[in-house]
Amino acid sequence: MERLLKKCQLRNQLLRECMAEFLGVYVLILFGCGSVAQVTTTQDRKGQYLSINLGFALGVTFGVFVSRGVSGAHLNPAVSLSMCVLGRHPWMKLPFYIFFQVLGAFLAAATVGLQYYDAIWAYSGGELTVTGPTATAGIFSTYPADYLSVWGGVVDQVIGTAALLLCVLAVGDQRNSSLPDGLQPVLVGAAVLVIGISMGSNSGYALNPARDLGPRLFTYIAGWGEDVFKAGGGWWWVPIVAPCVGALLGTLIYELMIEVHHPPILPELQTCQVATEGKTELELKLEQKLEQVESD
Amino acid sequence: MERLLKKCQLRNQLLRECMAEFLGVYVLILFGCGSVAQVTTTQDRKGQYLSINLGFALGVTFGVFVSRGVSGAHLNPAVSLSMCVLGRHPWMKLPFYIFFQVLGAFLAAATVGLQYYDAIWAYSGGELTVTGPTATAGIFSTYPADYLSVWGGVVDQVIGTAALLLCVLAVGDQRNSSLPDGLQPVLVGAAVLVIGISMGSNSGYALNPARDLGPRLFTYIAGWGEDVFKAGGGWWWVPIVAPCVGALLGTLIYELMIEVHHPPILPELQTCQVATEGKTELELKLEQKLEQVESD
Amino acid sequence: MERLLKKCQLRNQLLRECMAEFLGVYVLILFGCGSVAQVTTTQDRKGQYLSINLGFALGVTFGVFVSRGVSGAHLNPAVSLSMCVLGRHPWMKLPFYIFFQVLGAFLAAATVGLQYYDAIWAYSGGELTVTGPTATAGIFSTYPADYLSVWGGVVDQVIGTAALLLCVLAVGDQRNSSLPDGLQPVLVGAAVLVIGISMGSNSGYALNPARDLGPRLFTYIAGWGEDVFKAGGGWWWVPIVAPCVGALLGTLIYELMIEVHHPPILPELQTCQVATEGKTELELKLEQKLEQVESD
Amino acid sequence: MERLLKKCQLRNQLLRECMAEFLGVYVLILFGCGSVAQVTTTQDRKGQYLSINLGFALGVTFGVFVSRGVSGAHLNPAVSLSMCVLGRHPWMKLPFYIFFQVLGAFLAAATVGLQYYDAIWAYSGGELTVTGPTATAGIFSTYPADYLSVWGGVVDQVIGTAALLLCVLAVGDQRNSSLPDGLQPVLVGAAVLVIGISMGSNSGYALNPARDLGPRLFTYIAGWGEDVFKAGGGWWWVPIVAPCVGALLGTLIYELMIEVHHPPILPELQTCQVATEGKTELELKLEQKLEQVESD
Repeated sequence: MERLLKKCQLRNQLLRECMAEFLGVYVLILFGCGSVAQVTTTQDRKGQYLSINLGFALGVTFGVFVSRGVSGAHLNPAVSLSMCVLGRHPWMKLPFYIFFQVLGAFLAAATVGLQYYDAIWAYSGGELTVTGPTATAGIFSTYPADYLSVWGGVVDQVIGTAALLLCVLAVGDQRNSSLPDGLQPVLVGAAVLVIGISMGSNSGYALNPARDLGPRLFTYIAGWGEDVFKAGGGWWWVPIVAPCVGALLGTLIYELMIEVHHPPILPELQTCQVATEGKTELELKLEQKLEQVESD
Repeated sequence: MERLLKKCQLRNQLLRECMAEFLGVYVLILFGCGSVAQVTTTQDRKGQYLSINLGFALGVTFGVFVSRGVSGAHLNPAVSLSMCVLGRHPWMKLPFYIFFQVLGAFLAAATVGLQYYDAIWAYSGGELTVTGPTATAGIFSTYPADYLSVWGGVVDQVIGTAALLLCVLAVGDQRNSSLPDGLQPVLVGAAVLVIGISMGSNSGYALNPARDLGPRLFTYIAGWGEDVFKAGGGWWWVPIVAPCVGALLGTLIYELMIEVHHPPILPELQTCQVATEGKTELELKLEQKLEQVESD
Repeated sequence: MERLLKKCQLRNQLLRECMAEFLGVYVLILFGCGSVAQVTTTQDRKGQYLSINLGFALGVTFGVFVSRGVSGAHLNPAVSLSMCVLGRHPWMKLPFYIFFQVLGAFLAAATVGLQYYDAIWAYSGGELTVTGPTATAGIFSTYPADYLSVWGGVVDQVIGTAALLLCVLAVGDQRNSSLPDGLQPVLVGAAVLVIGISMGSNSGYALNPARDLGPRLFTYIAGWGEDVFKAGGGWWWVPIVAPCVGALLGTLIYELMIEVHHPPILPELQTCQVATEGKTELELKLEQKLEQVESD
Repeated sequence: MERLLKKCQLRNQLLRECMAEFLGVYVLILFGCGSVAQVTTTQDRKGQYLSINLGFALGVTFGVFVSRGVSGAHLNPAVSLSMCVLGRHPWMKLPFYIFFQVLGAFLAAATVGLQYYDAIWAYSGGELTVTGPTATAGIFSTYPADYLSVWGGVVDQVIGTAALLLCVLAVGDQRNSSLPDGLQPVLVGAAVLVIGISMGSNSGYALNPARDLGPRLFTYIAGWGEDVFKAGGGWWWVPIVAPCVGALLGTLIYELMIEVHHPPILPELQTCQVATEGKTELELKLEQKLEQVESD
């Protein structure tokens, strides 16, 4: 069996990265939208708002675990964009990443729709609506609260995504947090948890164009119709545009206030640091061992 | 005392593994079903659905801690089966593992029945029923929601177990997640938590034939009678068959999309990696020390 | 200031250990009983049963962090007793440990009484009662549910404490769990959390004679009177006796089913392992460095 | 882009530390007060008291991650004061730290006010009140429960802050807890969580003069008016003065009962320990490597 699997091995790096981004976002949305489906269709009897927060948080954690060693676990077009702007990711790869992120979210939404087919049918009486007492479109993508103005929604999404990037960059900045590398996915999930707890009620903390657009396209096709684009005063573009602005803003704040001011490290050490990028801990340990042996 | 205990030492590896699987599943069900008992008999006053999710999640975490160094902590016939299919576990051991897993779940259910004897009596008025307003069979094994079709239940269990395996394999894949080995049980528990939060309402996320069959046999014997096999339209076989399919599916997806594509590691290193299997961190460190000394 | 503090340094090892056990139990009860006080006096508005579970769980975690480097963080007479029976702790120290554990719990209960003085007064209308609609004795020590027989309570406490010891021993068994040493307090707290979630409703999961007797003595003196010993059919002795039986049972089960069967380690390595006991990681690293230098 | 950012690099250590304290407190209040805003304006539908506890806890965790490598992550004037008294922080820096901590809290409160502008408007009907059924001042700073006397409030804040320092010092004391350094922020957050769960109902567990004064000044300016200083019988000074007393008390207790009694370490080792302060793990490892190479 192992040998059979080995034959399927791909060597194209970009394709591997795209599959990893696809699967990472798939896991994120499967758990995230699944938790909304559970709370909605059981009318809060088997979960509450906190369990939705936990669903997206752990969804991100496992999405990152699934993909980080291959693609770096962006899982979010706004994050990919920021990395490109900072020069840490090639612009050429950006459209591929975004396409597979959206595709993963779309298929995960379809899976949730399949798994909760009977439940949604029973809850909504067979009518797939975007607004009203038994609305079910909110299981898949975000809609603003009644009181929220479009401008308020943009501000909400910009602040939320900026806060996300601030946390992610801090946690990943070894010279600041000194968090063990293998625990970063857990803390990134915790960042999503606290944002859901403190910035979730205005418009459902999409923070991620793929997380919102993919499932919205699914609902558009699967029977909820044009309302998914019309509801909330044509809300759909906000969770696509605002997170990109917010991600850039958060990156800038962290870079300008903390990271660029770290004292320079000696060139010798710098080489060493650069050389470790993209390798797992195991590989590094083995390399060190080999070096040791060679130097003897 | 220590000396007295030492005399009981067994050297049979398979027996040790079976005892570890037994105790691991025992702990899992003791905490898992215990949390359902607490929520049911106090009518949500001392716990809610989230506490059931936490009970099974932490039950898995401690079940894994109890057994991983000895048996590898399968704790689930569907997981054992996947490992056999992948060639990572001998087929010969499979029936032993499954028997002791089911036995552990059976005895843990009996323990929960004993511990909550007074509470179940008071809650149900002394009548042990499978359905109805004071049904208590759901403390021990899973039953589907009213709206769920059998086909919907199969899909639900296949997706849920596939998601579980996807997370477990990602977390354990050092070349992807780089999670410290000692924290894997915590993350496996977190995977069970998020599945309970996002896929629990349809049919109670058994995901594990032993977790469901063992306690069901206990209720059959202990007074709930034949209804435990008849309820839910003869539901009992679904959480036995579907998780096996789901586990294989999830394994295949992870292998085909991520693991087989990791770049090959040099043969020298591979030997090194293989040599570390099945040893604790301490042993490895000591070995390295010895090697170091010897090479001097 | 640092210099002033240095003058207070004690060298008596037993006295240091007693202070550590005292402070550890103090922290445990301060957070644990504090969380019950908050839930009781706000009538579930600022916390629910889950927050009590979290209060005791994190109370244990921080109690262990406060004391483990000095006394090994027993924090529980039943645990101390088990360690003595196993020959891992001198019998001579047992009475001292128990006395300071109970004293810590007593003073912590007094602190909670002081901090919630106004709240308890407002909630109970100034009447300190053990039973009835505005009973407040349950903030400090445990009382059984109405339906529970004394025998059922003994079984409940024996099972609960056995489960606790099983988890604690598994987590601490490096050859099984391989959990990083510094995270043990977190997992011990998680064990208390899951026991509270799955075995808390019958009689409040005391699991610890000091945790129950110390606060009970406080309520006896502070105005709740003799009822604290009479209520629940003279319940008070159960959480003192049953946890001791349960701790021994849990220890035996883990030892006989898992720990004694670990394959023997070479004598050379064993010396090494023994030599590390009771030292912090830092000390060990430094020692290793020194040895290295010396051996050169 | 990276190069552009590099040009903004500052070398002034105090300025860097002030910015880090500013951003750390900003993150703490953004998440903390944001979670109160979400619970208040949705009337417990999208969060409960527990989510406020989690909001402040994770706010502290990420505030520490954002700043610890630069400023040591005090994030609290009472903590800075304790460090100065203990001689571990220069008195000269104290006013700068305090100013930037309060400024961060003020601006974060303003951000929460902006993000929840529409929600607060809808919830309060456009009237910004400090007391009454639709009071919203409690989103930003703390007010005592009706039953609480001023003296009771002082006791509450002294005990709470003492408990915080006890936990923080224990977790950071390598010779006691042996917690991996990179996980300290998570455990400090957990300490804030358990304090909120067990000591939150009397007066909202400010524990931090900056956390309370900064947002109070914002509400004073932004339309809530003089009532923010008058309400609760002129409560505002308690969360400024009492936490300072409590922080000193908690520090003294931990130092006198645990830390000063650690056995002395050899001078050689002490030098080694001192030499590591203020460096990241990476730097230390690299240094060791260099030393090793040099010594060869």
